[in-house]
Amino acid sequence: MKFTIQRDQLMESVQNVMKAISSRAAIPILTGMKLEATEEGVKLTGSDSDISIESFIPAEEDGIVYIENIEPGSIVLQAKYFPDIVRKVPQKTVEIESDHTKNVTIRSGSAEFHLNGQDAEEYPELPQLRTENSFDLPTDLLKRLIKQTGFAVSTSETRPILTGVHVSTEEETLQFVATDSHRLASRKIKLETEESIALPSVVIPGKSLSELNKILDDTEDPVQISVTDNQILFRTKHLYFLSRLLDGNYPETSRLIPNESKTTVLIDSRELLQSVDRASLLAKENRNNVVRLLTKGNNQIEIHGNSPEVGNVTEEVTAESIEGEELKISFSAKYMMDALRAIDETQVKIEFTGAMRPFLITPVEDDSILQLILPVRTY
Amino acid sequence: MKFTIQRDQLMESVQNVMKAISSRAAIPILTGMKLEATEEGVKLTGSDSDISIESFIPAEEDGIVYIENIEPGSIVLQAKYFPDIVRKVPQKTVEIESDHTKNVTIRSGSAEFHLNGQDAEEYPELPQLRTENSFDLPTDLLKRLIKQTGFAVSTSETRPILTGVHVSTEEETLQFVATDSHRLASRKIKLETEESIALPSVVIPGKSLSELNKILDDTEDPVQISVTDNQILFRTKHLYFLSRLLDGNYPETSRLIPNESKTTVLIDSRELLQSVDRASLLAKENRNNVVRLLTKGNNQIEIHGNSPEVGNVTEEVTAESIEGEELKISFSAKYMMDALRAIDETQVKIEFTGAMRPFLITPVEDDSILQLILPVRTY
Repeated sequence: MKFTIQRDQLMESVQNVMKAISSRAAIPILTGMKLEATEEGVKLTGSDSDISIESFIPAEEDGIVYIENIEPGSIVLQAKYFPDIVRKVPQKTVEIESDHTKNVTIRSGSAEFHLNGQDAEEYPELPQLRTENSFDLPTDLLKRLIKQTGFAVSTSETRPILTGVHVSTEEETLQFVATDSHRLASRKIKLETEESIALPSVVIPGKSLSELNKILDDTEDPVQISVTDNQILFRTKHLYFLSRLLDGNYPETSRLIPNESKTTVLIDSRELLQSVDRASLLAKENRNNVVRLLTKGNNQIEIHGNSPEVGNVTEEVTAESIEGEELKISFSAKYMMDALRAIDETQVKIEFTGAMRPFLITPVEDDSILQLILPVRTY
Repeated sequence: MKFTIQRDQLMESVQNVMKAISSRAAIPILTGMKLEATEEGVKLTGSDSDISIESFIPAEEDGIVYIENIEPGSIVLQAKYFPDIVRKVPQKTVEIESDHTKNVTIRSGSAEFHLNGQDAEEYPELPQLRTENSFDLPTDLLKRLIKQTGFAVSTSETRPILTGVHVSTEEETLQFVATDSHRLASRKIKLETEESIALPSVVIPGKSLSELNKILDDTEDPVQISVTDNQILFRTKHLYFLSRLLDGNYPETSRLIPNESKTTVLIDSRELLQSVDRASLLAKENRNNVVRLLTKGNNQIEIHGNSPEVGNVTEEVTAESIEGEELKISFSAKYMMDALRAIDETQVKIEFTGAMRPFLITPVEDDSILQLILPVRTY
């Protein structure tokens, strides 16, 4: 195998593929990165069994030559050193060559690195997904769906299914839901497809989505999503991101969502966020970083944080409107801040149904995104 | 005590003073920050016994009013919460008020924080330095002296005196020296004073200088430096930085510096630095990150790094000139990179006196800065 490649293109691909490589992989060869050169270009592969990423660099695209002098072949390189070497080579091009003893030479300018490679034949074959169940989403929309729900997955392995995001379709609606059983984040979008898609409901590990979100650029280019029983594939022009799915039944979450409201507050999202942030400064000594919200007359909301040893903070925020019963409720400042950041609108609507019932946060005129938080009993 | 102050000025002072405050201070009240309001302004104080910092915010300066409504008094606040509170207050001004029960109220906009304060009378008095031994240095020059020597102090407590920088004067020359016994960094400057200063030789803890360097701005404004037997004071217009000195005799370092040279290399500093950096990528498996340097014909230097398990790297760098004996020498890549970064000149001169003797790195036409490195025996 031999090729001469543009350093910057190689670096970007290496960084993407590294997201799937763990130094603690169960199969030793998976601590490495596979390089495969063909006349068409160079493909890099990384995998930790849960996530597999392939990144392809074309030899030439749109008239720009990225790779020259290709002699096809493949090799596996130790991933611990390869990225730093690529980052620090002295010239804009790098020549990579492997010989029959699996010795790899990396040349750039007058620097010459020799690395011990491994046989690419020993690298596990990635499963090839064959499925009719595929659909396209604009990349930036997919990233938004991930950002608005992924933070709410459980980080505890007590109920492994909750560490994933539940993705389902109903008629032309695609829904992402995540919950750690203390809060829930949901986002729906209308799919603009001619044919109706019958996507099976799947649960994607939160970690996979978080890595995918880091790799994807903020473009409107489509991501093709394909699903089988136990795998999901995200494919862009030069990227192939495969994740295992979580086994088991995702809990029925729709019945958690209250369909009545006793107190409804319309409020500036940023003002509320900053006020909760300030209150949480003196609520951190509490195990759960709990703050208190009180409705008052004159469209005033009082936010309160308290650590008896340290002190307390009280702040009034003027709401756009407060309707319904008076309320005094306590909740995690972190959950509230996460939810407000996920909605990312100027104004939000908060619907309470009493101090001990879950409450809803949504944009004012839009039910496609919904954040639910369970209050904390403090009285 | 009561005053209304500009948030940004308060924030800057708080951040400076925090550099001296440790949450693990031996005396509990030193985990707090002292606030003192007088008609002239507000003084903040932090101390961990080793370092004490005072920052003064004038009520008014150059016609700009920073503090209003001052009622003199003092209080000690828990430093764990105060900086975050100041950073996150909603308005550009903050009102701070303490009552006779040591309750402190911090108001900004509609936010109101209550903190439990402590009696400022219980805060230890900072020693007042009375000394004739003081001189001025431009702030940016002092920062440069620290950066060019401070990195070479020892991080081990085996010989505590080596964790400090040795500062001494001889006639009109001021010298900073640091060594961890594997390398040495020295910087001399001519003092431009009318009267000769007879500064006692002192050893300043490396940590104190590193904190001082973070606080000082890169200006030409003078820093006044005063020394007594066991303390050193750095004073700028509004800052008072006091550090204890290290006890004991600093070793005589001048005899470590070779006064002959068998091989002299002139070389581009940046090219050498980057080449050593690359060689160190594959030298990290060695305990000491050791790379090898070989002189070759035709003004070529070969830099080599090797980890038998992983691979090796070889690079040739063209020197401006190589004079004297052929040489093959091994040294710590980190020490070489630290030294080259400290010198920060386009070209450097390296003077070797054999593979087992310390070697010198200096700017080409300037003996005010000197870096010495002990080689590593690898053969």
